[in-house]
Amino acid sequence: METAYLNNIFLLSTFSFVAAMAATPFWSGILYKYRLGKRLRTTGVGGGAPVFRKLHAAKAGTPTMGGLLIWVTVALATLLFNSDRGETWLPLFTLVSVGVIGVVDDYLNIRGIGPSGGGIRVWHKIVAQLGIGAVGAWWFYEKLGYTSLHVPAVGDFTIGWLYIPLFIIAMVATTNAVNITDGLDGLAAGLLAISFTAFGALSYVNELYLLAAFCGSVVGALLAFLWFNIHPARFFMGDTGSMALGATLAVVAALNDALLILPIIGFVFAAETLSVIVQLLSKKFLGRKIFRSTPIHHHFEAIGWPETKVTMRFWIIGAVCAVVGLVAGVVGGGS
Amino acid sequence: METAYLNNIFLLSTFSFVAAMAATPFWSGILYKYRLGKRLRTTGVGGGAPVFRKLHAAKAGTPTMGGLLIWVTVALATLLFNSDRGETWLPLFTLVSVGVIGVVDDYLNIRGIGPSGGGIRVWHKIVAQLGIGAVGAWWFYEKLGYTSLHVPAVGDFTIGWLYIPLFIIAMVATTNAVNITDGLDGLAAGLLAISFTAFGALSYVNELYLLAAFCGSVVGALLAFLWFNIHPARFFMGDTGSMALGATLAVVAALNDALLILPIIGFVFAAETLSVIVQLLSKKFLGRKIFRSTPIHHHFEAIGWPETKVTMRFWIIGAVCAVVGLVAGVVGGGS
Repeated sequence: METAYLNNIFLLSTFSFVAAMAATPFWSGILYKYRLGKRLRTTGVGGGAPVFRKLHAAKAGTPTMGGLLIWVTVALATLLFNSDRGETWLPLFTLVSVGVIGVVDDYLNIRGIGPSGGGIRVWHKIVAQLGIGAVGAWWFYEKLGYTSLHVPAVGDFTIGWLYIPLFIIAMVATTNAVNITDGLDGLAAGLLAISFTAFGALSYVNELYLLAAFCGSVVGALLAFLWFNIHPARFFMGDTGSMALGATLAVVAALNDALLILPIIGFVFAAETLSVIVQLLSKKFLGRKIFRSTPIHHHFEAIGWPETKVTMRFWIIGAVCAVVGLVAGVVGGGS
Repeated sequence: METAYLNNIFLLSTFSFVAAMAATPFWSGILYKYRLGKRLRTTGVGGGAPVFRKLHAAKAGTPTMGGLLIWVTVALATLLFNSDRGETWLPLFTLVSVGVIGVVDDYLNIRGIGPSGGGIRVWHKIVAQLGIGAVGAWWFYEKLGYTSLHVPAVGDFTIGWLYIPLFIIAMVATTNAVNITDGLDGLAAGLLAISFTAFGALSYVNELYLLAAFCGSVVGALLAFLWFNIHPARFFMGDTGSMALGATLAVVAALNDALLILPIIGFVFAAETLSVIVQLLSKKFLGRKIFRSTPIHHHFEAIGWPETKVTMRFWIIGAVCAVVGLVAGVVGGGS
């Protein structure tokens, strides 16, 4: 009976929202007390990043690791109320395992432990992501028997073991894309809330009701986090939020057999990543910058848009793309 | 076939978004050229409103009547693509007729024609709203045979001719509630986009597919408007936007037999209105203000929240209430 599932979705999203709202003062208090604030990049990939540093000097010291609240809440909601965990075991595993790696990374970054100012070495991080991606890919391929790629409105293509690298690429790309997007107050959290809403609706249409409830609980926790994360942000989600939620988004897409829908619903994440790549290539081969600063949200700040204007306009793009992707996913069939 | 309806929803929402985005530079150019900017209240209901005036002095001169773009786009989309207009005739009639009254009001306000600084007399406006409400109520009662009120999860109550005053009250209340809410950049437009999305989804569940497509086209046009209306706003929607969309929202709710869901999905609109009423009563009977300034969004500005923070937090409340209302509407049955 669908009504029971709707009640379940309602229960999980409401519980997550209320629980995360209630827990925030405590967590935020701890973060401020122990001064768990983010250090701005001084070396490494961001380099001197002069434009970026000028724009964001005021943000130094704002606590990070707010994302921990999101995945702890979702895990709690899933364990308490989502009775049959077969459908939600995989996204939950992803959320928590990547979340834990993120906490370690955030903590080392804050304490300034590690190379180039703090944090896990970049290639250690990539190896960890590839490892978790491989576990997920193996699970999909071996346990769940995923061997085909659904192309909306065209049909299914059997790709056999190629599913494994495809899944790993999708997951690692989404993880880092969301991480890259997480650079303005409320930006990544708002876009994630939109994306998980769209994939929750798609899960519901595909009759994956428990997965829909899982998405609902992510959205509930994200909206509570967003309450405190909008400009001027009280705290940031950190790697533990952006990476965990990015990886989980990819898993949810895979469970819906909608990996090709992912770059549509997550268009802004993809565009942010592309802007970084294009900038790097352009600097290397053409010897000049295309954007004033990347990821591209900093470019718009640099040309004079207020931070909230960039955030809200990117949300609008995200909402439009979510509708396009959702319709493509539903009409195109799948799962 | 549901797919055809989904394509229809997709077509209308995308058309509206693209058309409204494309038309904005022209309309905005006209508004700036003829200096069609809003005057801030100097007398009348808002009285001296010292807190309000201080906070919003910078907004004087920003053009209004941006809402015209929304309803013209939606009307165009409906007439072009929503083939069977039986289902959408009533909301379209409401949108356009209230929109036209709004344009007159906005124009008189801008030119300073009329009592207390410009605009249609308040009681003329109320009479016009009651008139349109009466036409709508008659249509529902006489033509469509609505004589009962659906209480979610409880059942239907036959109320006979009482449907007529109930409908009129719902419509006039929603019209003015959205109008009252329209006081911060992006606030009303964002909340309307959320509300029409929720009612669009409810229409789809209730198999009112053309109405769902109509809601989609409203959301598309609203998101395009919002692109330019977020802080710092390039223009405002004006009475022609807020009143027309408020009245239409009530009609869409009525068509879904979900009048009692309206105050849940539109909770922020209801709360804004309540804040004004409570403040008036308190000033009259207790001789003191409860809020620093009303509608309540100004109260939060007055206690120090940046404008965008109020807007985005009210959006978050709106999103949470939309989920609650949607689930109540779907689980509770109706239509």
